[in-house]
Amino acid sequence: MLSKGNCIIGQSGGPTVAINASLSGVLQGIIESDAYNSVYGMVHGIEGLLQGSYLNLSEQFKTKESLDKLAITPSMYLGSCRFKLPHYEVAPEIYEILFNFFTSNDIRTVFYIGGNDSMDTVVKLSSYAKANNLSINIIGVPKTIDNDLPMTDHTPGFGSAAKFVATTMLEIAHDTYIYNIPSVTIVEIMGRNAGWLTASSALARTSYSNAPDLIYLPEAPFCLDSFVEDVKRIQKQRKNVIVAVSEGIKDKDGNYISATSTAVDAFGHKQLCGAGKTLENYLKDKLGCKVRSVELNVLQRSASHIASKTDIDESIMIGKAAVKSALEGKTAQMVCYHRMSNDPYYVDVVSHAIEDIANKEKVVPRMWINEAGNDVTEDMLTYLRPLIEGETVMGYANGVPVYCDITHLHTKTEQK
Amino acid sequence: MLSKGNCIIGQSGGPTVAINASLSGVLQGIIESDAYNSVYGMVHGIEGLLQGSYLNLSEQFKTKESLDKLAITPSMYLGSCRFKLPHYEVAPEIYEILFNFFTSNDIRTVFYIGGNDSMDTVVKLSSYAKANNLSINIIGVPKTIDNDLPMTDHTPGFGSAAKFVATTMLEIAHDTYIYNIPSVTIVEIMGRNAGWLTASSALARTSYSNAPDLIYLPEAPFCLDSFVEDVKRIQKQRKNVIVAVSEGIKDKDGNYISATSTAVDAFGHKQLCGAGKTLENYLKDKLGCKVRSVELNVLQRSASHIASKTDIDESIMIGKAAVKSALEGKTAQMVCYHRMSNDPYYVDVVSHAIEDIANKEKVVPRMWINEAGNDVTEDMLTYLRPLIEGETVMGYANGVPVYCDITHLHTKTEQK
Repeated sequence: MLSKGNCIIGQSGGPTVAINASLSGVLQGIIESDAYNSVYGMVHGIEGLLQGSYLNLSEQFKTKESLDKLAITPSMYLGSCRFKLPHYEVAPEIYEILFNFFTSNDIRTVFYIGGNDSMDTVVKLSSYAKANNLSINIIGVPKTIDNDLPMTDHTPGFGSAAKFVATTMLEIAHDTYIYNIPSVTIVEIMGRNAGWLTASSALARTSYSNAPDLIYLPEAPFCLDSFVEDVKRIQKQRKNVIVAVSEGIKDKDGNYISATSTAVDAFGHKQLCGAGKTLENYLKDKLGCKVRSVELNVLQRSASHIASKTDIDESIMIGKAAVKSALEGKTAQMVCYHRMSNDPYYVDVVSHAIEDIANKEKVVPRMWINEAGNDVTEDMLTYLRPLIEGETVMGYANGVPVYCDITHLHTKTEQK
Repeated sequence: MLSKGNCIIGQSGGPTVAINASLSGVLQGIIESDAYNSVYGMVHGIEGLLQGSYLNLSEQFKTKESLDKLAITPSMYLGSCRFKLPHYEVAPEIYEILFNFFTSNDIRTVFYIGGNDSMDTVVKLSSYAKANNLSINIIGVPKTIDNDLPMTDHTPGFGSAAKFVATTMLEIAHDTYIYNIPSVTIVEIMGRNAGWLTASSALARTSYSNAPDLIYLPEAPFCLDSFVEDVKRIQKQRKNVIVAVSEGIKDKDGNYISATSTAVDAFGHKQLCGAGKTLENYLKDKLGCKVRSVELNVLQRSASHIASKTDIDESIMIGKAAVKSALEGKTAQMVCYHRMSNDPYYVDVVSHAIEDIANKEKVVPRMWINEAGNDVTEDMLTYLRPLIEGETVMGYANGVPVYCDITHLHTKTEQK
């Protein structure tokens, strides 16, 4: 039995609703393949492992019930880090600590679930292993609500964030249309450089509501004057205008719009305003009507209670596929969705060399944004629609959803 | 048939997730009793009716399917207003317009669904009717996420808002605990003078998460120094501190803590924003660790996708009871929940004189806040728990919930 060896899994970067579904998928793939003796989990990613923090996951997740519950639990069960591994020529001691751990614990595969920056860790670990002729497979599993990873049709976690954004946008429309006075509502959505999530607000449109009337992404230069004209034009058609805006909208010179405005609070502190608040203050001056802004904030990446079933199911599938890739001997690869067909919607999982993915961003193609730069095209909607289908069957106890116990993450005393 | 007469329904004040459930309940009560010929709906409340805006609801809501869909649609199907009726001695012409409409349309009952300020409309209309010996019943139906209406155990709409707050707080805990660095997260919850909704954040607590660690309501004087001490004390136990705070927290002299409180609405309320942001900035200076604030904003009053089934069912029930009250000849009354038993939880509907309710606020009793003023007591939790039970079975189409068509609310051309 010892010849099977062990494996370890880590999670890294910002939270999503589906990153634990991928963890559950990796665990399910391991159980089904029976290819490893023990499965460890880094606590707080590669940074936590460097400090000796890990868990034995084989013992905790044996039953279907526990794996199902894990799959719908938001954020990272294993905790996260935002840690860029230094190059091994700069800090060889870090690599020695990590690979000593791998060797002494008979780790044959490292699964690392994360986004752009986390894939950089996969590159560096696999490069070190290759350079030192070490027999260990390093496999990346994607995640990010930003949907900005190359080579994969979309990313695990994006569909659920998109479903939250679309649903919330529709509910904000219902909230907005009730008063018989002109108003502008600006909804700020996450996305510094990639506008995929803001684009998904268009999925809120129904036969009776066109909200959001205007959509601005970081990929198209933002002009304050054009924005005011856009709003005034919509105001001729309807009383209440609803705008979706990426946090990362920039002017034609690439400067963030949010950086142009600061407010001063009661203590005299300058507050850096978000893009939504900045536009709110600007419009109030220009229009003289009621203007408000809503920042969806961390809710858009953690609202498991309205996860996309498609997203959760696929995230489990891609986790299982990561195990298959490792067992086929692949390394320095990331598992990716490949859309085989849109109607009916069907995706397969393939794997790609990590060098084509790490530290790269897939932004929205300009042709999926309308010419005026204030809406998305029908092609974008065709791409987005299948990703938010279905709803997770959520168990509730005492009125709130039932998620996994994460006591190990918030205790002051670190476990080994 | 004509002897049965007609009735009219209006909605007023701020949105909730259950105010259309009460509308659906009134409509169901009317259909079941067969006591009226036609049912009209004021569009944009009493203010809209003054401008001649109304709909015929009998034609639109005949089927069980349409009434069920209405019951889970957020915000006001009929639109809303924030309009304080002037006293009839000041503006008799307003009352003449309204009662001419009622008389010429054979309106026998006015159902008005709203909160504190809307109940003022019920008081004034019924006083006018009484003074002029007019045979028309005016019945108030409560609603508000603030839960601050006297005489009723709780208000329709509160349970759903509480469920959203508790669920979101739990999801924010999962989002917060992932990093291995100290942080403070401040969640700002609606409530100017009454802390009921902020208190409901305590329902997020599970066996593995104590979030929110600290809860501050407007009913207990807020002290910035004590707040910093409270946070420092929790930081000794865990890395990540999560705080729930009402938008309306005040210092011992009754001044709002929030950064900006200059704007004044139609009722003379100060428009608040930024208690959370204010505390965030204050703490950043004092602690030097990561501090962030999250404002739940309009989502807490419009997130029908996670409505409390208990709240929706009861809101339909109280709407039906309003019809029963009218048919019993009652007027100048509001229907109220009376909690018969907590275990098992069971409420009945009774009606109370509107004078005891309008323009009055039911705040959290001091004994349901702990002595230090930074948490709620077990009695509060016992009161709150039953209100968030269950989940609405939500239909989805194209990935988003299926709500009622509200085209009539946002078109530029007002319907008659």
